[in-house]
Order: sequence, then C-alpha cells, then structure tokens
Amino acid sequence: MQVVRELMAEYGGAVRTRMMDYLPDAEPRAYLYDLTADYPRRGGRGLRPTLCMATARAFGRSAQDALLTAVSIELMHNAMLIHDDIEDESEQRRGQPALHIKAGIPLAINAGDTLALLAMRPLLDNREVLGREVAMLLLEETIRMARESAEGQAMELGWRRDNAMHVREADYMEMVLKKTCWLATIHPSRTGALIGAGRRAPLEPLIRFGFLVGTAFQIQDDLLNLCGDATAYGKELGGDIYEGKRTLMLIHLIESCTQGERERIEALMATPRADRAMSEISWVRDAMDRYGSIEYARQVAHGLAGAAAHEFSRLYGSLPDTRDKQFIQALPAWVIARS
Amino acid sequence: MQVVRELMAEYGGAVRTRMMDYLPDAEPRAYLYDLTADYPRRGGRGLRPTLCMATARAFGRSAQDALLTAVSIELMHNAMLIHDDIEDESEQRRGQPALHIKAGIPLAINAGDTLALLAMRPLLDNREVLGREVAMLLLEETIRMARESAEGQAMELGWRRDNAMHVREADYMEMVLKKTCWLATIHPSRTGALIGAGRRAPLEPLIRFGFLVGTAFQIQDDLLNLCGDATAYGKELGGDIYEGKRTLMLIHLIESCTQGERERIEALMATPRADRAMSEISWVRDAMDRYGSIEYARQVAHGLAGAAAHEFSRLYGSLPDTRDKQFIQALPAWVIARS
Repeated sequence: MQVVRELMAEYGGAVRTRMMDYLPDAEPRAYLYDLTADYPRRGGRGLRPTLCMATARAFGRSAQDALLTAVSIELMHNAMLIHDDIEDESEQRRGQPALHIKAGIPLAINAGDTLALLAMRPLLDNREVLGREVAMLLLEETIRMARESAEGQAMELGWRRDNAMHVREADYMEMVLKKTCWLATIHPSRTGALIGAGRRAPLEPLIRFGFLVGTAFQIQDDLLNLCGDATAYGKELGGDIYEGKRTLMLIHLIESCTQGERERIEALMATPRADRAMSEISWVRDAMDRYGSIEYARQVAHGLAGAAAHEFSRLYGSLPDTRDKQFIQALPAWVIARS
Repeated sequence: MQVVRELMAEYGGAVRTRMMDYLPDAEPRAYLYDLTADYPRRGGRGLRPTLCMATARAFGRSAQDALLTAVSIELMHNAMLIHDDIEDESEQRRGQPALHIKAGIPLAINAGDTLALLAMRPLLDNREVLGREVAMLLLEETIRMARESAEGQAMELGWRRDNAMHVREADYMEMVLKKTCWLATIHPSRTGALIGAGRRAPLEPLIRFGFLVGTAFQIQDDLLNLCGDATAYGKELGGDIYEGKRTLMLIHLIESCTQGERERIEALMATPRADRAMSEISWVRDAMDRYGSIEYARQVAHGLAGAAAHEFSRLYGSLPDTRDKQFIQALPAWVIARS
C-alpha cells in the first residue's frame, strides 16, 4: 500500500501546485473566484489525478504529459462536489461547511458552473503538449464522463425525491457505475491510456476495470459513513441514512427485513428531513447490523476488488514493471482497506 | 423590422429542428432527459442563433456553416436559463412554471449541468464542417462567453444577497456587459465572424457593438418587466422589484429619491422575499414614474441603440449588401421597439 500513498503524495502534489495557475486571481473575488478556489484549497487525496498520470506512464508516456489532464480532472471533481453538496443537502465537506452553507445556494450554483468551465482550460492547453487531435479526444472523454456522472446523479436524486422503495442491487450497480466510477476510476484510466497509447488504448476493457475498482471504492465509502471516524472522514457520520441515500446496505436491509420494518423505513424516508428523529436513524443503523447488511456489503466490496485484481493482470500484465503499474495493481486492495 | 422577424423565423426554425438531434431520447428520462428537453421545447425567438448565422453569412460564408454553432448557442442559452431561474428564484419561464418548480431544485441543477454538456457536442461535431482549428477556437469562445456570463451573474447575485445600495450606473453597465451581452450579442457575433472570416474577424470591435445592442436589449427587457403585457412577456410583471434585482430604473430611483425613501427601499429589499408586501412593490413602481426613472432608462436605451447603429456602419459598411447584413443593421432599432 505504501506505493499508493507515495505516488498520491508525489503526483497529487504536482497537480495541486499546477492547478493554482487555473484558479483566477481576479474580480469578482468575494462573489466568485474566492468561491471557485475554496474546495480546491481544502486539499483531497488526489486519487483521480494520480490514477490518470500513473496510467499514462504505465502505457509508456511520461507522467508529466498527463499533468494538464490530471489538473482538469481534479478541477472537474471539485466543481461536481459543489453541486452535489447542494443537491444532496450536505452540510460539510472535508471537515468544513459546504460551500452553499458559506455563500448561499445561488452563488454556490454559479461557482460550480464556473469551476467546471475552468476545468476545460487545461484541456485546451493540451494542444501544445499533445497536439490538436489528442486534445480533442480528451475533451470528448471529459464531456462523456460528465454526462455519465450526471445520469447517475439523476438516478440517485430521483430515487430520493420519490422515496423509491423498489431499487434493486442491479439498479444500484448501474447508478454507481455512472455516478462514481466514471469520474473516480474509468475517466482517469481512459484519459491516461489515451495519452500513453493513443488509438491503441484499451478503452472498453478500462470501463470494466474502472467499474470493479470504483464500485468497491463507493461501497467502502458508504461503509465509512456508517462505521468510520467522523474526524478522519470529514462528513457527518450516519449522514447517508439521514439524507435517505440508497446504499447497498439500505437496499439489502429493505430486501431482508419484515414488512412492518420496511414500512417503518419508508415512513422515515417520507418524513421531511428536518423532522427525521435521530432515534429512527439509529434504529435503521442497528437493523443493518442485525440483518447482516453491513457484513454483506463488505463481502461484495471484497469480491469486486478481487475481480479487479484479475482484470488488472489481463490489461497491464504485459507492460513493463514500473512504480506506476504497481500503483494501479495496489489500488483494488487499497480502496477497501482505507479508513 | 420585417427582416428581423423573417430571418429569426427562418434561421431560428432551422436551429430548433437541428437542436432536437442533440437532445437524447434515452434513459434516465423522467429524472434527466425529459428535463433537459423542457426549456428547448418551449421555443423562444431564436435571436442569438440567428445573429450567429447572419454574421457568418455577412462575413462571406454560408449560414449553414454556422448551424452547429448556432445550435450550441441555443442549447447553452437554455442551460443557463435553468440555473438562472433557480438562482433568481423565478417561478415562471416562457409562460410555464420554471423547471425547478416542476422537478425540484436538485434535479433541476443537475439538468442544467447536463444541458450545458449537451451544448458542447455540436461544437465537437464542428470538426467535420470547419476543421479542427476553427472548431477549437469556437470551443474557446464558448468557454470564455460562459465565464463572462458567470462573472456577471455573480455580481448581480452578490448585490442582491448583500442588499447592496451603492451600485452605480457604471457597475450596472459592467454587470450587463458580462451577464447579458456576452451571450445575447457578443458571442453570436464573434463566433459568426470567426466562421465567416477566420483569423481576420474583427473580434475586439464586435465586443463594442455587442455591448451597445445587448445593453439596450437588457434595459428594454427590464422596462417590459415593469410596463409590459404579462401574457406576452411570459414572466411575473413587476417581478424584478419583487426579486430585488438591480435595474437601471432602481439605481436611478435610489440616486434621485429622498433619504427617507431610500431607507424605505432598503427596508423592502432587506425583508425576506415571501414577506414583501405588494403595496410596497407598487409604491416603488410608482416612485419610478414620479422620479422619471422609467423615462431616463428609455432614453439611455435609445442612446445605446443609436451608438450601435453608428458602430454597425464602421464594422459592416464595406461588406456586400445581403439580407443577413440588413438583419444586423435593423437589430439596434428592433431591440428597443419590441414589446
């Protein structure tokens, strides 16, 4: 796992430094550019940009050639977090108040739009490094990724708005593929491979690999929301239940519990958020233990990580052994081990 | 004026037809793609795309060569309306409930993000028609336009949030340049000229021309909000005062009225929206008449339109006389005559 931490520190650090060049030091500051710089300045592990740079390197080009694309990925990630936090009514992000809590919803929506535009700038600058053709392909990839994410977000938000009680595991997997995996793992892998190998990049198999790693990542993230350490996690613990988020654990619980318990969950989710009793949230959390929903989700995450390791061998097995390849190899185990 | 109506009907119609190819007929429908198609299906005059196509034609290329760019402009315009309506807490759009009233704020934010992404697609397809270099330039122009718009929107939202009473006419003009003119007139003119004349396009002077026409357009729009016909207008009459929007009329009134009246306006704007009394809104509206604020704004709009006509001669005077050139020539008078 050390290689994961090391490479994220090295590549992530380079991205955070370069990213600052793309955050304007201009008016309007208080109403716009202080806001667009807020989340990027809060840091983050840098998993996504590191995966992009490592993949470019594993496929034979320098990590430096992927730097601008990695910067774009990190900016886009932060832009999407701003709108996600409004849409999910999240109050905290990385241990501080969410942007819309600080600035109000109207200015936060506008800042999210602007940060997404700023994320396009390094992709245009890619022309100088990679030429017009590859630069255009990377723009197309970015737009596809953002659309897949928005489709996944629409599914999740719609389920929550309509208090959908019939979401099955297959629906959940499709939603996570779109909402989480495209940005977290598929897009960094595909853009890295495009930079490294051009038209020879194995774009379709990278969707499969990214799905396996990314879904294990998402399930682990949801488990940490229930079982983790609030300080390390930086969000409200148990917040997912409070927010009515359809997680694998909730879906398993709804499929396993009695009719009466199912109705009790439905009633809780139908209650306006501010009126949801802490005691009911705790009861759902305890029921997840009683019905083995937590344990079940852990097992699914392990299974996905195992399948990802197998997929890794097929995709990367014949490439030269580098630290970057070792990073990608270690990722499946890392995503389910992190706390 | 007939040429304005005719060309908007012809080019606007072509754009609306082609635009439908860029609105996905796919899942998730109810939670996403029905929402992204909602505003585009409500119609609109098509001023922006028509100006783009007419400018391309005036500068010597076919209007058809600008069709995809015009489609992108219309999609982007609709995308921005979705977020603007949320940020401005507008309840109606083109005579129907605003999207966030129909779908809820979270899904509407997400739909706005997605529609902006869909607007990038025709710009990528421009490669086939205009080649990679011009296609890339048009992408850059689009990103610049969207940033200028977001800066203007930030200024206006910030003033409203902080109940800024010291906004002067010069601040207002800068805000309108960014928020209105870049999308409504500058961007369609610049992209049209780039398609028509490539690197010989007079990009800087087109900012001046667009500012003059666009600001006259915005002032007329704000006048219609106070004096127009609600059915034809499609929004709540007097809604701008209710929303606390800083218009030229409000700025003129604040600068002209007594200290006591100024405090009465400030108190109204500081009241939570739902508690703002209709009688106070009417009082502000009447005061605008008494202090000549309405008449003053009309005169400024006329002055801007006159200067735009002069700028037109310098920019377009030497180009061949076409219906497209006549359209651009007639625009300054049209924007202040429309009701």
